[in-house]
Amino acid sequence: MSTEQRSILVTNDDGITAPGIRQLVDVARSFGKVTVVAPDSPQSGMGHAVTISRPIRLEKTDLFDGIESYECSGTPADCVKVAVDQILHRKPDLVLSGINHGSNASINVLYSGTMSAAIEGAIEGIPSLGFSLTNYSRNADFGPGLPFIRRLIQRVITQGLPEGTLLNVNIPNPEDGQVKGIKVCRQAKAKWEENFAERTDPHGRNYYWLVGIFKDYDQGEDTDLYALSKGYVSVVPTLFDLTDHHFITNLNTWNLNE
Amino acid sequence: MSTEQRSILVTNDDGITAPGIRQLVDVARSFGKVTVVAPDSPQSGMGHAVTISRPIRLEKTDLFDGIESYECSGTPADCVKVAVDQILHRKPDLVLSGINHGSNASINVLYSGTMSAAIEGAIEGIPSLGFSLTNYSRNADFGPGLPFIRRLIQRVITQGLPEGTLLNVNIPNPEDGQVKGIKVCRQAKAKWEENFAERTDPHGRNYYWLVGIFKDYDQGEDTDLYALSKGYVSVVPTLFDLTDHHFITNLNTWNLNE
Repeated sequence: MSTEQRSILVTNDDGITAPGIRQLVDVARSFGKVTVVAPDSPQSGMGHAVTISRPIRLEKTDLFDGIESYECSGTPADCVKVAVDQILHRKPDLVLSGINHGSNASINVLYSGTMSAAIEGAIEGIPSLGFSLTNYSRNADFGPGLPFIRRLIQRVITQGLPEGTLLNVNIPNPEDGQVKGIKVCRQAKAKWEENFAERTDPHGRNYYWLVGIFKDYDQGEDTDLYALSKGYVSVVPTLFDLTDHHFITNLNTWNLNE
Repeated sequence: MSTEQRSILVTNDDGITAPGIRQLVDVARSFGKVTVVAPDSPQSGMGHAVTISRPIRLEKTDLFDGIESYECSGTPADCVKVAVDQILHRKPDLVLSGINHGSNASINVLYSGTMSAAIEGAIEGIPSLGFSLTNYSRNADFGPGLPFIRRLIQRVITQGLPEGTLLNVNIPNPEDGQVKGIKVCRQAKAKWEENFAERTDPHGRNYYWLVGIFKDYDQGEDTDLYALSKGYVSVVPTLFDLTDHHFITNLNTWNLNE
């Protein structure tokens, strides 16, 4: 397939005006005809939400020079669905989501709007990658990660991805700006240790803000968190078949019909 | 552990007033001390969303005789987090989510608020089960499924679940009301074939409603959709480690650092 023929959908969850998506569009345009469909407002923490009970708005923008782009009132997963059905009228050849401002390594893949868009692409049978930088700042420096993003897109175009598998790519933010390379990883066993900050409103009613500390419980050196801590880009091949295939055999010994 | 000592958290995504959660509470109360923390409004399709940028409200209710219950303005995943941190001040011994009005079989596990609450429980290291009835009606008959729900809860209490695995339980809705038994299954390969219905508002602007047709592409007889179609309760052991462990070896041959 020639670069002219390749249709690439770019989306994100930080919203269409976030710096991260501009960087990704600039990389993507050298690989094909890019279309941007991204949320009109930040959608972080939306997980795999879809908009069922409200309609979706879609507005053409001129935010990207020479690239067809739309802002969408829905979630990142909605963006992929509406792009395929209403804008492209076909499946794109590649779905790229990000670059997210903040890590989607480890358990964050579940909460991530960025990754939900990439998962939605994979469900549609499209090779899909989600990219995140482990820096929440709006002024984060995406530069050091870009050559690695370019390389990963190139490889996926060349090699393809198995049906049902997408890539969760996280980019480290080393103080010296030196990204060491790429490591293929598994999702680390880590979680948010939650608590809620309690406040009282002017009417005397309580409300709660979610706050949390991220804890890595994994000792492995083959995890995404480990690779990132050592200055490597982490690539986790990611499934949307959540079945615990190994446990099926065990569960069958429970004799659930007796 | 005695029944008196066992702490059981019940939540859902259809909202605290939905009939399905009443049925689940009635089953759960014979196994331990039940606390209900559920959304104050329907949260279907919320996936694994969490509420970061808004505070959460929590109000005590008297909707369940003799059972401490709270309605929460957050998502199902928020309900589990706030219950552990602000209400129980400890991890419960069991998290039960549902009974959802509508199927969460196959790919719906990803979009499901019901399952996100159960996944959140499992992330916390708590044995967790999500229950759904394949009937969207508010007046659905939950009766035929209840003995099977009771049995599954009993077995999980007796046998435990491996760390990182929860159960996605779907209950069929056979016309004759006869549920045939329980089958351990894998998640079927199926998806929503989306389209969007386009409308024009009184101001001449377009908007779009998500509509979709569910398509089962799986020929297997070991899937949740197959079991349900034959009148069986489907039980899919479900992971929140999304890593495609099999593909790691292959991806390492891509020589990503060259």
